[in-house]
Amino acid sequence: MPLCPADDAFAETLAARLPPDTLRRAEPRHLEEPRGRWHGISGWIALPRNAEETALVVRACAEARVGLIPLGGGTGLVGGQIAPDGPPPLLVSTERMAAIRAVYPRENVLIAEAGAILADVQAAAEAENRLFPLSLASEGSARVGGLLATNAGGVNVLRYGNARDQVLGLEAVLPDGTIWHGLKRLRKDNTGYDLRHLLMGAEGTLGIITAAALKLSPRPAATGTALLAVASPEAALDLLALARDRLGEAVSAFELMARTGFDFLRQTLPDLRQPWDAAPDWTVLVEIGLPRGLDPQEALEDLFAAAHERGLCNDGLIAQNAGQAQEFWAVREHIPEANRRIGAVSSHDISLPLGEVAHFVAEAGPALERIGAFRVNCFGHLGDGNLHYNVFPLPGRSPADHRNQREEVMTCLHDLADRLGGSVSAEHGIGRLKVGDLERYGDPAKLAAMRAIKHALDPQGIMNPGAVLRVG
Amino acid sequence: MPLCPADDAFAETLAARLPPDTLRRAEPRHLEEPRGRWHGISGWIALPRNAEETALVVRACAEARVGLIPLGGGTGLVGGQIAPDGPPPLLVSTERMAAIRAVYPRENVLIAEAGAILADVQAAAEAENRLFPLSLASEGSARVGGLLATNAGGVNVLRYGNARDQVLGLEAVLPDGTIWHGLKRLRKDNTGYDLRHLLMGAEGTLGIITAAALKLSPRPAATGTALLAVASPEAALDLLALARDRLGEAVSAFELMARTGFDFLRQTLPDLRQPWDAAPDWTVLVEIGLPRGLDPQEALEDLFAAAHERGLCNDGLIAQNAGQAQEFWAVREHIPEANRRIGAVSSHDISLPLGEVAHFVAEAGPALERIGAFRVNCFGHLGDGNLHYNVFPLPGRSPADHRNQREEVMTCLHDLADRLGGSVSAEHGIGRLKVGDLERYGDPAKLAAMRAIKHALDPQGIMNPGAVLRVG
Repeated sequence: MPLCPADDAFAETLAARLPPDTLRRAEPRHLEEPRGRWHGISGWIALPRNAEETALVVRACAEARVGLIPLGGGTGLVGGQIAPDGPPPLLVSTERMAAIRAVYPRENVLIAEAGAILADVQAAAEAENRLFPLSLASEGSARVGGLLATNAGGVNVLRYGNARDQVLGLEAVLPDGTIWHGLKRLRKDNTGYDLRHLLMGAEGTLGIITAAALKLSPRPAATGTALLAVASPEAALDLLALARDRLGEAVSAFELMARTGFDFLRQTLPDLRQPWDAAPDWTVLVEIGLPRGLDPQEALEDLFAAAHERGLCNDGLIAQNAGQAQEFWAVREHIPEANRRIGAVSSHDISLPLGEVAHFVAEAGPALERIGAFRVNCFGHLGDGNLHYNVFPLPGRSPADHRNQREEVMTCLHDLADRLGGSVSAEHGIGRLKVGDLERYGDPAKLAAMRAIKHALDPQGIMNPGAVLRVG
Repeated sequence: MPLCPADDAFAETLAARLPPDTLRRAEPRHLEEPRGRWHGISGWIALPRNAEETALVVRACAEARVGLIPLGGGTGLVGGQIAPDGPPPLLVSTERMAAIRAVYPRENVLIAEAGAILADVQAAAEAENRLFPLSLASEGSARVGGLLATNAGGVNVLRYGNARDQVLGLEAVLPDGTIWHGLKRLRKDNTGYDLRHLLMGAEGTLGIITAAALKLSPRPAATGTALLAVASPEAALDLLALARDRLGEAVSAFELMARTGFDFLRQTLPDLRQPWDAAPDWTVLVEIGLPRGLDPQEALEDLFAAAHERGLCNDGLIAQNAGQAQEFWAVREHIPEANRRIGAVSSHDISLPLGEVAHFVAEAGPALERIGAFRVNCFGHLGDGNLHYNVFPLPGRSPADHRNQREEVMTCLHDLADRLGGSVSAEHGIGRLKVGDLERYGDPAKLAAMRAIKHALDPQGIMNPGAVLRVG
């Protein structure tokens, strides 16, 4: 049975049950997504102030068989926040639940509402000399609820894990409109199935997260940042192994950048200061965080010397101060913007077993050449085996010239990643973009279990319809 | 509809579908559990050699509506591995799937079958200069499948997380007998609902784990161990905060022991060498693991000096060598055995927000006094807020003398933990022992979701019937 639209009659009934000004017409910003691939159908948006109001909204949708889409910062890259067609759903924004409810420095815990901006959570932790390690390009606008619902990744996963690893407890509204009060501040709690981890990664299809108890980490006493030139992804992986042998968990970030990234930056963002005079084929950005008593610059110099001795690394820049470290990071962080300005044929968020990364890079190029002539910008979180492998037209051509090849390019790269034991969505999720990929590459037993769980918790299919799974 | 028994007729049919000698009569060791509280009904046990044979067994049970109980090392403390009544279930042991299939040192990944013994996994990691950090008293007999199904805890959770945090991928047989091939070696994989984390903590009620891709960690370059005397649990928590401020994540273990523990050891295990001449009221065992360039003994001396200066710590012993460190750990590790020999009225596996630990300890004593006269041995993983708060008769009396008070003692302590935002099962799980506790203290929305998930994945209720949830 198809869902009913969140039309004016539904909105009128719902508005009468909510405090004034909780329901509005969606604004254009609620209907856009960063890649400009989809545009949402215009309609109504609910802006509840707390879990109770959220529950009331969800119950009304459940009673009326109206679909709803939870909306955080809207920074997702796979269309999980957009309904481009079908009966118009109700958007449910977390933006009014943006408080940091409490910080418990001695417990290393922070309680944030779903609408809290990631940068604000980081700042609140820093104010208490703690670290909230989740960090990614959109941290100035991404909100906690969306980050957790999509199990966001970013640059510190190597050391601290994904978003899901930062969570002790959740408060959420389930598809029947009941509130799960699970905001535990516990490191250990083995009392039944782990709903936290089920809601995290479900991308709003099993409930709406309204608040989270987040784990804070100690701040390293000192950090150091370096750019190291390596000959190949293989050499970069040897360098990573060397770094971890010498520095253990102190390696916080290990990012790979191809020379193409530096070329794109020079072309599209010429004012951005580039650290290399001539960028090497492959650059690794490494960041380390050390406890008291150790000097990060010395540690990075030692690492460079050892890598150089082994022939892994032929050039390097070690940041001499915080400003220079920021400059190094600015290069890495502006690559997605440069990519956007160049215009990709297709973008990929691949992960691989570390031992297969070099095979992927070696095989992907020739496989693409069999389809056509492209440029590739490969960069990403190498320490996690996570490559953003993006395919571009040759100079003078446009993505539109390759429209017919887009599917073939995607399938070719995704098939290769799958064959090597990798994932076709490392950190971005499934959203609406990769529903077909999940069907193609997902394990059949897992898919059947997912469908059974979805049907059990959301029998009408009202939660983020069309995302992750095709239902019915 | 009740389940059917795994009787001789069922066994005969099943045996015909399996390789010779896969089905046997259960031995006494398969029907016991460490606390001697339950005894399993005698019957049949399947000993499959791989996931395919396990799947065949599960399918046969599903077709015949026969219950089955997954069996690992049998070390669980809440009766999850024992069916004391009802239609005899089929036991399904993982003991023949004990291989470590592969180690990938450069990836920091190890693939273990479910029947692999924890100590063997630790040794295989160590052989490659890596660390598998999960560590607990029963590591010489506990098996990977059971450890993951129960999300085991232990002494290194503070630094490395629980069992679930060590897992990248799983292979498992679901209740319909399909195999989920999810042995991914990926740090990031956001492709759909996280079945891993659902099976982990489900205690065999949603499937049988047959193998796991485990995450290895770098080994600290050097470790140090100390016993520090503190005046109270409150002071111990201040000491923990101080240690983490100075040493960050390097604090690997932070265990609390009451003087009672040392008294019990002297009484029941007089040959065990005790480090203190006279044990203080409260002792903390702290272990640190440092990267190259730092000296653990120096770091512990500095910590002691700083703690002493702040009045947190009035005495301390820093292990001078590995033998002495082992001696310190032996004390901590023998406390459960001493407790068994003394004989508890009831044992509790409580966790609390760190900020509530002192309140719990302060309130629990007087609350117990209102019930009767007891001795308490409180020890545990303080860094995780996890207290093993065990209640004993006064000298000269026996647990049997308090049989009628047992329920009241448990309810009193569990109510208190619950009121303070704690958990009544920090690391042991629900099993059969705490099904009632889960119903009493569990969040209603979470319980309803758990029941819906259980029904969706195991509609006949054949997987570990009676554990975790009462079904039907």
